[in-house]
Amino acid sequence: MIGEDAAPFLAQVRDFARDTVTVRAPDWAKGQAIEPEVVARAAEIGLTRIEVPTRLGGLGLGFRAKVEACAIVAATDFGFAMSLVNTHNVAKRIATTLPETVARRFLPDLLSGASMACTALTEEGAGSDVAALSCTARAVDDGWFLDGEKTWIVNGRHAALAIVYAQCGEAGQSAGIGAFLVDLTDASCRRFPIETEISQASIGTGGFRLTRCHVPTERMVLPPGTAFKAILSEINGARIYVAAMCCAMVSSALRVAQAYGEMRQTFGKPLTQHPAWREGIAHSATSLAASWSLVEAALLATEQGRDVRHLAAAAKVNAVDLAQTVLPRLLHAMGAEGLRDSYPFTRHLGAAQLAALTDGSTAMLLERLGRWDPTPIPL
Amino acid sequence: MIGEDAAPFLAQVRDFARDTVTVRAPDWAKGQAIEPEVVARAAEIGLTRIEVPTRLGGLGLGFRAKVEACAIVAATDFGFAMSLVNTHNVAKRIATTLPETVARRFLPDLLSGASMACTALTEEGAGSDVAALSCTARAVDDGWFLDGEKTWIVNGRHAALAIVYAQCGEAGQSAGIGAFLVDLTDASCRRFPIETEISQASIGTGGFRLTRCHVPTERMVLPPGTAFKAILSEINGARIYVAAMCCAMVSSALRVAQAYGEMRQTFGKPLTQHPAWREGIAHSATSLAASWSLVEAALLATEQGRDVRHLAAAAKVNAVDLAQTVLPRLLHAMGAEGLRDSYPFTRHLGAAQLAALTDGSTAMLLERLGRWDPTPIPL
Amino acid sequence: MIGEDAAPFLAQVRDFARDTVTVRAPDWAKGQAIEPEVVARAAEIGLTRIEVPTRLGGLGLGFRAKVEACAIVAATDFGFAMSLVNTHNVAKRIATTLPETVARRFLPDLLSGASMACTALTEEGAGSDVAALSCTARAVDDGWFLDGEKTWIVNGRHAALAIVYAQCGEAGQSAGIGAFLVDLTDASCRRFPIETEISQASIGTGGFRLTRCHVPTERMVLPPGTAFKAILSEINGARIYVAAMCCAMVSSALRVAQAYGEMRQTFGKPLTQHPAWREGIAHSATSLAASWSLVEAALLATEQGRDVRHLAAAAKVNAVDLAQTVLPRLLHAMGAEGLRDSYPFTRHLGAAQLAALTDGSTAMLLERLGRWDPTPIPL
Amino acid sequence: MIGEDAAPFLAQVRDFARDTVTVRAPDWAKGQAIEPEVVARAAEIGLTRIEVPTRLGGLGLGFRAKVEACAIVAATDFGFAMSLVNTHNVAKRIATTLPETVARRFLPDLLSGASMACTALTEEGAGSDVAALSCTARAVDDGWFLDGEKTWIVNGRHAALAIVYAQCGEAGQSAGIGAFLVDLTDASCRRFPIETEISQASIGTGGFRLTRCHVPTERMVLPPGTAFKAILSEINGARIYVAAMCCAMVSSALRVAQAYGEMRQTFGKPLTQHPAWREGIAHSATSLAASWSLVEAALLATEQGRDVRHLAAAAKVNAVDLAQTVLPRLLHAMGAEGLRDSYPFTRHLGAAQLAALTDGSTAMLLERLGRWDPTPIPL
Repeated sequence: MIGEDAAPFLAQVRDFARDTVTVRAPDWAKGQAIEPEVVARAAEIGLTRIEVPTRLGGLGLGFRAKVEACAIVAATDFGFAMSLVNTHNVAKRIATTLPETVARRFLPDLLSGASMACTALTEEGAGSDVAALSCTARAVDDGWFLDGEKTWIVNGRHAALAIVYAQCGEAGQSAGIGAFLVDLTDASCRRFPIETEISQASIGTGGFRLTRCHVPTERMVLPPGTAFKAILSEINGARIYVAAMCCAMVSSALRVAQAYGEMRQTFGKPLTQHPAWREGIAHSATSLAASWSLVEAALLATEQGRDVRHLAAAAKVNAVDLAQTVLPRLLHAMGAEGLRDSYPFTRHLGAAQLAALTDGSTAMLLERLGRWDPTPIPL
Repeated sequence: MIGEDAAPFLAQVRDFARDTVTVRAPDWAKGQAIEPEVVARAAEIGLTRIEVPTRLGGLGLGFRAKVEACAIVAATDFGFAMSLVNTHNVAKRIATTLPETVARRFLPDLLSGASMACTALTEEGAGSDVAALSCTARAVDDGWFLDGEKTWIVNGRHAALAIVYAQCGEAGQSAGIGAFLVDLTDASCRRFPIETEISQASIGTGGFRLTRCHVPTERMVLPPGTAFKAILSEINGARIYVAAMCCAMVSSALRVAQAYGEMRQTFGKPLTQHPAWREGIAHSATSLAASWSLVEAALLATEQGRDVRHLAAAAKVNAVDLAQTVLPRLLHAMGAEGLRDSYPFTRHLGAAQLAALTDGSTAMLLERLGRWDPTPIPL
Repeated sequence: MIGEDAAPFLAQVRDFARDTVTVRAPDWAKGQAIEPEVVARAAEIGLTRIEVPTRLGGLGLGFRAKVEACAIVAATDFGFAMSLVNTHNVAKRIATTLPETVARRFLPDLLSGASMACTALTEEGAGSDVAALSCTARAVDDGWFLDGEKTWIVNGRHAALAIVYAQCGEAGQSAGIGAFLVDLTDASCRRFPIETEISQASIGTGGFRLTRCHVPTERMVLPPGTAFKAILSEINGARIYVAAMCCAMVSSALRVAQAYGEMRQTFGKPLTQHPAWREGIAHSATSLAASWSLVEAALLATEQGRDVRHLAAAAKVNAVDLAQTVLPRLLHAMGAEGLRDSYPFTRHLGAAQLAALTDGSTAMLLERLGRWDPTPIPL
Repeated sequence: MIGEDAAPFLAQVRDFARDTVTVRAPDWAKGQAIEPEVVARAAEIGLTRIEVPTRLGGLGLGFRAKVEACAIVAATDFGFAMSLVNTHNVAKRIATTLPETVARRFLPDLLSGASMACTALTEEGAGSDVAALSCTARAVDDGWFLDGEKTWIVNGRHAALAIVYAQCGEAGQSAGIGAFLVDLTDASCRRFPIETEISQASIGTGGFRLTRCHVPTERMVLPPGTAFKAILSEINGARIYVAAMCCAMVSSALRVAQAYGEMRQTFGKPLTQHPAWREGIAHSATSLAASWSLVEAALLATEQGRDVRHLAAAAKVNAVDLAQTVLPRLLHAMGAEGLRDSYPFTRHLGAAQLAALTDGSTAMLLERLGRWDPTPIPL
């Protein structure tokens, strides 16, 4: 599915996932923070610069390479994959939007994994209603003062940099929204973690409050009038890779269950030779096949420059639903063994709940699909 | 999705479906037999010769054109689409397997729609267990004597020709199975309809009993040793077009529901402006998108000559399940109006039950998918 | 579950269902009208007078007896059960609301099965929005003139009597709605059938148009101010018996499938000895058990005089969903055999779609359950 | 639903759950061990002696009281409820089976909460195949020597006492299985915790290995020939209370979501006034109502001394499925807020996976329900 250029990179990602992420993920799932050397290694093989142009130190690969890399990492740890791709997306935005001199100041730390970054849109009470942002940007001579609080941000608890969306005009105006590159280590910013019973260690969920946070003019990433549209477009990409990540979690669970079924004997024969057991697996495999196909349709549409809004939303809704319903079934196919942290079932099941709520909740996406006709051929 | 060559043909199929099939389908659904002139018109535009080579009077188009044509007709009447494609498949088999002189004797009636044809595999008690066929072919000097009964055959009640699968060797030997071109109008053959509460008028479900039915040597379509494999391969294609037909039935139902929702007012506004109504439609659209994508994956794999066994089975399981679960929801979205025979909901819902049982039941297909890993990218 | 008094009646209903309804149902399902002698026999054993007081010729039994009788008949033919219970409900309403002299004029034909009756609420465009009724009742000296059209009425095509709900006051006022006993054989009334691809023969779906239809004062069944409330209360009962009827359809399908599975051999042993087959049946049995339990909860609450609104709605939503999803699975468990009209699967599957839309659609009922907490114990 | 005797006890359980368990549960969910004083308080109000006869210090209440108490605690923390009821069941078994002098030696610590207890049946590789137990009991003059390993035992990591099931005869003989009261603090026993990414802190999942563990004659709880049957009967009760606990988890999640929906505003009005949101909640409430009703049916059958095997199995299958599918939907209805550990969604979702695998997995239970007809009325 992927061009030759990306193959060596993806091979490295697979090795990294198998040798490093698999080993560390169970501890992250119990709340242990991600080790800096693991992030550094991820960055070294290129996971924070996939789509960054080569002249700025990136790999210069395309969207499909990013989606596949995300899927490979998420097959072991969804949270870490989210953390990396969010950092990557900030790096890409800096590289493609800011003046090169500014970009070159901020890129090295992201490309080396020395620091992480986040895109900060969500606020308390403005999850689905983007125009309702209450974070404000007030223009001053040499830039802007930002005030407000962002929450439920991937990497929010430990990011050094953020692209912050804020209202530059009147409250409620989608055309007034702009985006700014903010140094979260500045004194005007107070970061906080968000704790849940699903470990947020690898995904780094958190938020921050900005109080008269000064942002110089040159760090306006997207001026009012373009930011709202940009975020909507970016989020289509995010929906596709999150969908692929959900599929990948189910793929990894399916493989574990199938391998276990070949080995584990009950009533004198392997589980795979019990037709009822096998039928359960077959149902899961069939649903998984459909979800992957829909991801591919969205990916293809993206590559062909077609409007991908509906396909991206549908792919995400479908893959999230897959993960939420199929992961418990695959866990069950393992018996109590499936609960052990050497297997990914419960980690992925928790992640599926996060996936359902990130980059457009299922409820919000369905709102947009009620008039869509997905028929690919003229009937 | 389709090459230019097929476009004019498919445009004619669409016109035919809209102008003729839509009008007649409600009567067929109440048990009225298909009018000969409707079959003749279907044949005239090419529906019984899509994949037949041009030198034998066919359109010389490919598998994708057949799948799309089936989908277009099934969007209005699944049974009629099944009837046509089964006739077509016999024509194609005759054209590609039998000596040209023999082929030229039998093709004209099929290509003109003067008669229909069927492929007869299923027997009472040998639905899923092909090797258990009890229909026998006994070799004599100038050919074969066939004995046995076939049932649940598409076009079985009115076909003039059948390709009959029969055991040439010992009972139970899959290598002993051969296929023969049988004239069902012969005195040695007694045809019978099968009646159910779902109308079988357009699909023509029936069976026949052969008693010392003589088949000349030249009409052996597939000799023992090859027939079993041929039927398995052919059935993969059938699963893909049945899957596409199920998707097309849901597409047509979705469109009707969406159009109705724009027009029909409750509590002072159109249904489409009621979020709960729209969300139900959006769920259906999302599932439909996934099913179509899986059909496309199976179709692409076929065109690329890859092993399509699992994808074809999965596409059928998924599309049948879609039709069985989504059609009642879309009917419900119309209120009682959806029951009227001017709408396709109940006709399609009945057809979905037939589709579930044809060309490999869901239960049988799942048997084969328990060890399958559908992941399209190396994780 | 039932007191001794009802036992002999219910035994007769079972005999009637087994000896008569089972035999006739397949023809009704193909559109043949119900034979007058079948209706007469149903009436003779008491199916149109279950809750009618004994002094007026009724059986004087309670709600539970009605629910069980409905379930017994619906296990074979949902439509006929609906036709009978709707006639019964009019008889009961006449017996309990109208002056005895009036009641004694109209009851005999209903209690003998000489004619059928219907309750007419639904109008084009006022399915779920009761207050929006456009049928009007205009007071005159000696009664009322009714004008308007009713549609989608059980028994509408052949009922001799109807209880018609009409607006006596200003449009849109729920307090203005009254109910009137109307002679549908009168010249001011034009009845019409509604045809769908699901046979409406036994349920008798139809409608009628009233044009200056005169109703004498004494035939006002419910005066404005009470009718709206009465219909809401009556409909709770209807939801419970429709739920029981859906459960009964699934029970009958389950039994047929289980019996078939004991007998039918594949791969050398009965279906019931194939674990994957049995697991499918077990899933269906489990869901059925839950639906029956919820019906029992609603029935018990009715008997105890508790508010049954939510339980009745939930029981119906649940049982309809059961029938829509489980009937196709049980049909599939039979293979193509399940399609034959000697089995009830496709008839019940069609009926399940009618059930979903009668006496409150699933969509409408869910509207009312969003704030309900069904927890039966204080947590 | 409950007699007056149990009311004061259940009121105390509710207070305890609200005041203590709710506060501690989030920490247990992150791996913190249950505080001894919390266990002591639970015991003080009677949670470890509900069914223990009053003359031995118990509450002398019935099965229904136990089920309700379990449900009340599980509405906050399923694991702790499981831990308590398993201790309780050992206390009850000791009180009703062992000689009073022996019982009086072991009961006080359990009734005071000074120690916990467990019932140890499961072994590696003998989850569903009870007769395959490999733990052995070898008779010696003054008792028995037990050898073998038990795993996935509730309270296994910290119980002081266990009722251990072991094979007294030949391997594979279900009639050879006996049950013994074992002191797990003895040197012949090595206990171990089982860690998973779902916290096992409150449920105390673990196992132990017995090596020549001596059990005096008087501590044989159930002799060979009776133990196998006893465990099957006891497990029916367990399936009913686990089902109730799953329902209670969903009830608590439903209430939280409904309360949140009244308060949380989007697009200018509370969530409960968004029809699509409310419909999702209504679906969940409806399914919950059905599950609770099935639990009640099983409970009633138990109280009436009817065979409860099928009802208990069905109630568990149904309630587990409810919890697995509805909890993610209710979490989603809260948006990201639902992830916070001040809400019970993710804790309950993890617990639902444990529930699916305890006291008979769904797969195993379905095995037994394929021939069951749950219809409650004669059709």
